[in-house]
Amino acid sequence: MIALFTDFGIGSPYVGQMHAALARDAPEMPVIDLCNDLAPFDAGAAAFLLPAFAAQFPADTVFLSVVDPGVGSERGAVMIRAGAQWFVGPDNGLFNEVARHAADPEWWDITWRPDHLSASFHGRDLFAPVAARLARGEPPPGVAADPRERIDFGSPPDLARVVYIDAFGNALTGLRAETLADSSRLVV
Amino acid sequence: MIALFTDFGIGSPYVGQMHAALARDAPEMPVIDLCNDLAPFDAGAAAFLLPAFAAQFPADTVFLSVVDPGVGSERGAVMIRAGAQWFVGPDNGLFNEVARHAADPEWWDITWRPDHLSASFHGRDLFAPVAARLARGEPPPGVAADPRERIDFGSPPDLARVVYIDAFGNALTGLRAETLADSSRLVV
Amino acid sequence: MIALFTDFGIGSPYVGQMHAALARDAPEMPVIDLCNDLAPFDAGAAAFLLPAFAAQFPADTVFLSVVDPGVGSERGAVMIRAGAQWFVGPDNGLFNEVARHAADPEWWDITWRPDHLSASFHGRDLFAPVAARLARGEPPPGVAADPRERIDFGSPPDLARVVYIDAFGNALTGLRAETLADSSRLVV
Repeated sequence: MIALFTDFGIGSPYVGQMHAALARDAPEMPVIDLCNDLAPFDAGAAAFLLPAFAAQFPADTVFLSVVDPGVGSERGAVMIRAGAQWFVGPDNGLFNEVARHAADPEWWDITWRPDHLSASFHGRDLFAPVAARLARGEPPPGVAADPRERIDFGSPPDLARVVYIDAFGNALTGLRAETLADSSRLVV
Repeated sequence: MIALFTDFGIGSPYVGQMHAALARDAPEMPVIDLCNDLAPFDAGAAAFLLPAFAAQFPADTVFLSVVDPGVGSERGAVMIRAGAQWFVGPDNGLFNEVARHAADPEWWDITWRPDHLSASFHGRDLFAPVAARLARGEPPPGVAADPRERIDFGSPPDLARVVYIDAFGNALTGLRAETLADSSRLVV
Repeated sequence: MIALFTDFGIGSPYVGQMHAALARDAPEMPVIDLCNDLAPFDAGAAAFLLPAFAAQFPADTVFLSVVDPGVGSERGAVMIRAGAQWFVGPDNGLFNEVARHAADPEWWDITWRPDHLSASFHGRDLFAPVAARLARGEPPPGVAADPRERIDFGSPPDLARVVYIDAFGNALTGLRAETLADSSRLVV
């Protein structure tokens, strides 16, 4: 299964183009819109949501994750294996919390490039084809790296930050109920 | 076919988690987002829309319907068979109009419970797995009850209420064209 | 593959009813929501977006395109073959740019009518069933016409018009980068 996790905007044609790319490269694969409504450009907020949602998905799900304010710059592109799931997207901190929560995360820099790579839409041209390959069971098209050299595992960020507000007015933070001294009054 | 009918908000990650649960429990089943944009918490308004939309769907469609302000309280959980279709969701009046319009509605209280039932997301933990079972053709996991003891069939509610406003600015009510004295000027 | 391209509004139940009609008439066919967020009633703006997006989709994709302010009036209904793809929808200029960009466009007026045709929802009752037929490989249910008699190929419209504003605040126009004298500073 491939799950889309982007800031492209609900109903936007960019989401439709992602689906078209996946239908071309992985035609039999179920594709789920996990969330296309993330706060634009805010990879830090999205990073907190990803492990909470990923826990609901089965092993080998590929999370095609694009919150990418640096698209077109020199920022890297990455594939991460964590908790028996795959995460594909820009190397900008989006997968930091997923890696922190995993027992033994693995990291690859994406070195494959498509024939045509637009300056502004790596989601369609680069990340979607790579996600399709991983979903088909192919090896990661890149070079392995040490996650400990890419992520600072020692300094937890500001967990109390609001990272999403839902349709009912609930504000979600990066805090987890089990980490609080008195969680008896929390709804989880 | 399973049709989602919720107030979760378009593009919300709750909808994505519902799809993930259905992909796990009924992997070959087509799932359609009928509407995830219902007025939050307003089961009464949603109740009028459901029979109008359900009429467009084939027999044996399972309507996974969640407008559930009482989630986490003692409100019941229900499966209804009406017009050769299934309706699954909270027992809070959401299915009253569907049952009123059906020739011979059947009712079951859901007694099955999952291993983990969150206090705030019965859609994912309870109703989606039950909908998947019904879509797979399994018997309803609950106890039959008499619809006439659960619904007041004698007192029609305020049909002239606006229950949905669409993207074009049209206001939908619970009124049906054929019930009006002069329906010649109506667009239906 | 069938791609939806409408102004029905994201998350609206009209989109869900389109999916239901397609699931009934073309059950094995992948259906993608290309865009359901087009400016309401603005067929002229949508006309510019369509060829740009269609270029990303494979041959034989059927674009079920409904921006239809004249629904219920005497406006025609049309099927166009352009660039080895199909376009189905109202005859109101929505396909003018697709036809202009194609080497050898073909045109058919839809003459088939369903048993029940609502006055306000030809998308569900007329265009979706026709799109399903074309996706299944059946011949176009209509009468061929000469595109040159239906479209003025000689007078290009105002390309500099803004036709879509995305979730990031980018404003899309009908201009193409390669037509500008100095396109070196454009992001495409």
